[in-house]
Amino acid sequence: MKFHKILIANRGEIAVRIIRACRELGIQTVAVYSEADRDSLHVRLADEAYCIGPVLSRDSYLNLTNIMSVATLTECDAIHPGYGFLAENADFAEICESCNITFIGPSPEAISKMGDKSVAKLTMKQADVPVIPGSDGLIEDLDKAVLIAREIGYPVIIKATAGGGGKGIRIAEDEESLIQQITTAQQEAQKAFGNAGVYLEKYLTGMKHVEIQIIADKHGNAVHLFERDCSIQRRRQKLVEEAPCPILTPEQRERMGQAAVRAALAVNYSGAGTLEFLMGQDGQFYFMEMNTRIQVEHPVTEMITNTDLIKEMISVAEGNELSFKQEDLTINGWSMECRINAEDSERNFMPSPGHIQFYLPPGGLGVRVDSAAYPGYTISPHYDSMIAKLIVWGATREEAINRMKRALSEFAIEGIKTTIPFHMKLLNHPKFIQGDFDIKFLEEYDVNDADGASNGANFNI
Amino acid sequence: MKFHKILIANRGEIAVRIIRACRELGIQTVAVYSEADRDSLHVRLADEAYCIGPVLSRDSYLNLTNIMSVATLTECDAIHPGYGFLAENADFAEICESCNITFIGPSPEAISKMGDKSVAKLTMKQADVPVIPGSDGLIEDLDKAVLIAREIGYPVIIKATAGGGGKGIRIAEDEESLIQQITTAQQEAQKAFGNAGVYLEKYLTGMKHVEIQIIADKHGNAVHLFERDCSIQRRRQKLVEEAPCPILTPEQRERMGQAAVRAALAVNYSGAGTLEFLMGQDGQFYFMEMNTRIQVEHPVTEMITNTDLIKEMISVAEGNELSFKQEDLTINGWSMECRINAEDSERNFMPSPGHIQFYLPPGGLGVRVDSAAYPGYTISPHYDSMIAKLIVWGATREEAINRMKRALSEFAIEGIKTTIPFHMKLLNHPKFIQGDFDIKFLEEYDVNDADGASNGANFNI
Repeated sequence: MKFHKILIANRGEIAVRIIRACRELGIQTVAVYSEADRDSLHVRLADEAYCIGPVLSRDSYLNLTNIMSVATLTECDAIHPGYGFLAENADFAEICESCNITFIGPSPEAISKMGDKSVAKLTMKQADVPVIPGSDGLIEDLDKAVLIAREIGYPVIIKATAGGGGKGIRIAEDEESLIQQITTAQQEAQKAFGNAGVYLEKYLTGMKHVEIQIIADKHGNAVHLFERDCSIQRRRQKLVEEAPCPILTPEQRERMGQAAVRAALAVNYSGAGTLEFLMGQDGQFYFMEMNTRIQVEHPVTEMITNTDLIKEMISVAEGNELSFKQEDLTINGWSMECRINAEDSERNFMPSPGHIQFYLPPGGLGVRVDSAAYPGYTISPHYDSMIAKLIVWGATREEAINRMKRALSEFAIEGIKTTIPFHMKLLNHPKFIQGDFDIKFLEEYDVNDADGASNGANFNI
Repeated sequence: MKFHKILIANRGEIAVRIIRACRELGIQTVAVYSEADRDSLHVRLADEAYCIGPVLSRDSYLNLTNIMSVATLTECDAIHPGYGFLAENADFAEICESCNITFIGPSPEAISKMGDKSVAKLTMKQADVPVIPGSDGLIEDLDKAVLIAREIGYPVIIKATAGGGGKGIRIAEDEESLIQQITTAQQEAQKAFGNAGVYLEKYLTGMKHVEIQIIADKHGNAVHLFERDCSIQRRRQKLVEEAPCPILTPEQRERMGQAAVRAALAVNYSGAGTLEFLMGQDGQFYFMEMNTRIQVEHPVTEMITNTDLIKEMISVAEGNELSFKQEDLTINGWSMECRINAEDSERNFMPSPGHIQFYLPPGGLGVRVDSAAYPGYTISPHYDSMIAKLIVWGATREEAINRMKRALSEFAIEGIKTTIPFHMKLLNHPKFIQGDFDIKFLEEYDVNDADGASNGANFNI
């Protein structure tokens, strides 16, 4: 099967990214948008565009009925969900199937299995993928929880089984705190995710967030595309990602990659996905969760492997075999991504939506910008604050850092505050330059101590 | 020696390109500009910037005295001349030397030797580089010219020895026309280049313009970085360049590459340079000229070889050995460049300077934009009409073409006319898609016959 028309059930830079891939493949595109997004770039770039509801996501980008109506009426062969919104909604994948529209992603079963964190953990354990010591399933009662916590040792972390993206997480340093928090955590989980189930895990410290990109076809082939180091996080939100990971040895890489492929095969996975691991300085790694979709940070993997993950997702959704084998994939150079958010990084990352008066992205050798911003565009306060992904490639990590600093220094966005000054300072921090950082880096260090802040190029318009 | 500060004796995108490389290397930059270029991007991006004279190039960008004064007063270690202006001026290279400022390029002797086309041709012949059959030196008198033309056969081409870039060229179809044109050609050459010397060559047809990028250090090492096909020309001005050449075999590539390295070694070349050849369908190639500088189209070579030619030029000018050997270089994928000019391609490429009201370059995977344009910038009528180089990389030629079409379709430049519609039509032309074209392509075919014209994205601002 060859797709003729794809609906992109998303907005912002990822919708633009998917439209670009479709256009290069000669596939027609249908954009959908909320009333707040009439002037968005994805609407302008798509072949067709339809309004699917009011500004609130639940009325538009999460509006299954309206999205399916557009897909059906415009005779789309497939829907690409991007990330966020409906990307990990098994019901949506199932509805697509029942309407004879291909969901560009894994099966509803694979999404469900990985979406329920305690089921996912058990599945991984069975596939011989190392997991964090913990309750091996949901907490049935308080007494059991206390026993398990004693066995694995404090501190422990309480996680909602339906959570994800850093939400629904609490840490208990001792038994008293555990007893206090577990009921609250269950109530919160019920409220936030409609599922009160929580589980316990050993709370590991000094860990890096290292994830493995995989992609699989519908013929039982699965490969990994090496790792990304996403340890630079603020309140569990990734800010900078790079590939490869500065401290991973080839042997550790091989072990993690093989574990990720085993994980994919264990759930009959197809499409692009990511296995997120915590990794210690010793290279020991533990499964955290699997994201059954394309990720924000996929470009750094594309840059070091010369692949196009969105095109490959479309191809495997069409039923083709993977266009590359494991042995075809090698790491070439170094890539890094900075998420440019409409936030005032000097005032506690306070959101800074508004009108972009002047916009000039950086260019030149080794610089890639994935963005839906343009001069005169107004950033809505209703959605994600990320306005651009600045991605660079360099022959070495040093060149990638220097190129990123160069690109940040010429990125001109006027009218709103952005995280460009934060990134500039981070990239000048000696610990970052040495590659010596874990997920607590931004809690432990103040990047304002570093030199070289820059607000990007100033056009004084 | 490590450079601390470099003066960039140029303007526009190439000045921006060099500033970017310097910034990544931690080298301070000094921009120079004419009175017309106060608001130029290279002025904004450099660490320091100085006005060197009025709008006319001869008073500013060709003003040796003023440029050397700025370089000396700002304590620059080196000058990068870019392309055009003073880039192939042996006197300038010599003055730099005498002021103890490194000229980032070859020696004055190498520039002189290659700048005099008949000397260059003789040098190449001695280095066993195939040359076009011709007069082997300047035409002494009319009788001699007639004898030589009879020997090599008509049509013949009359070239000014001091010419270049397609200027000072006449074609004679028979003896009568030769006799008529040779005196006029000499008078024209005297007027245009201050040198009346002309020489004769066989006028070859059905040829491609294929050039080899070389780079050499000051320790006798020289390598080639494969070829570029620059056959898509209008009035001898390149419009589209790609690497590799669609019809070159590995054996032909090897032969041309080796000839180019022999040529470089024959003149003790150092720095980046290009050997331009005419090549027939049979792979037989003939030396045309050597450009002793970086070229406009160098990015396509960077994209397929993962090199940074400007950084490498700076490194060899510092006295370092080349950072790669011939065997380290391989061709990875395909790259293509479209020159976006401020010209109305639908009205005979009439210049279209003016105010850019809206500007949004394309982005995403595999797209590189080298430009000095920005929203609100006014294109001056006084200089080159090229406002952006749009460069793409693809795994295959087909992917590169599709990516270029995608990128052209989203390139938004409003307020002036550009060559974007021309490029879009060219890329849809079956002969171009097949790779079946020579330097006469644009004379023989009307790209308006092709479908798929696009003016780029329209923001209707």
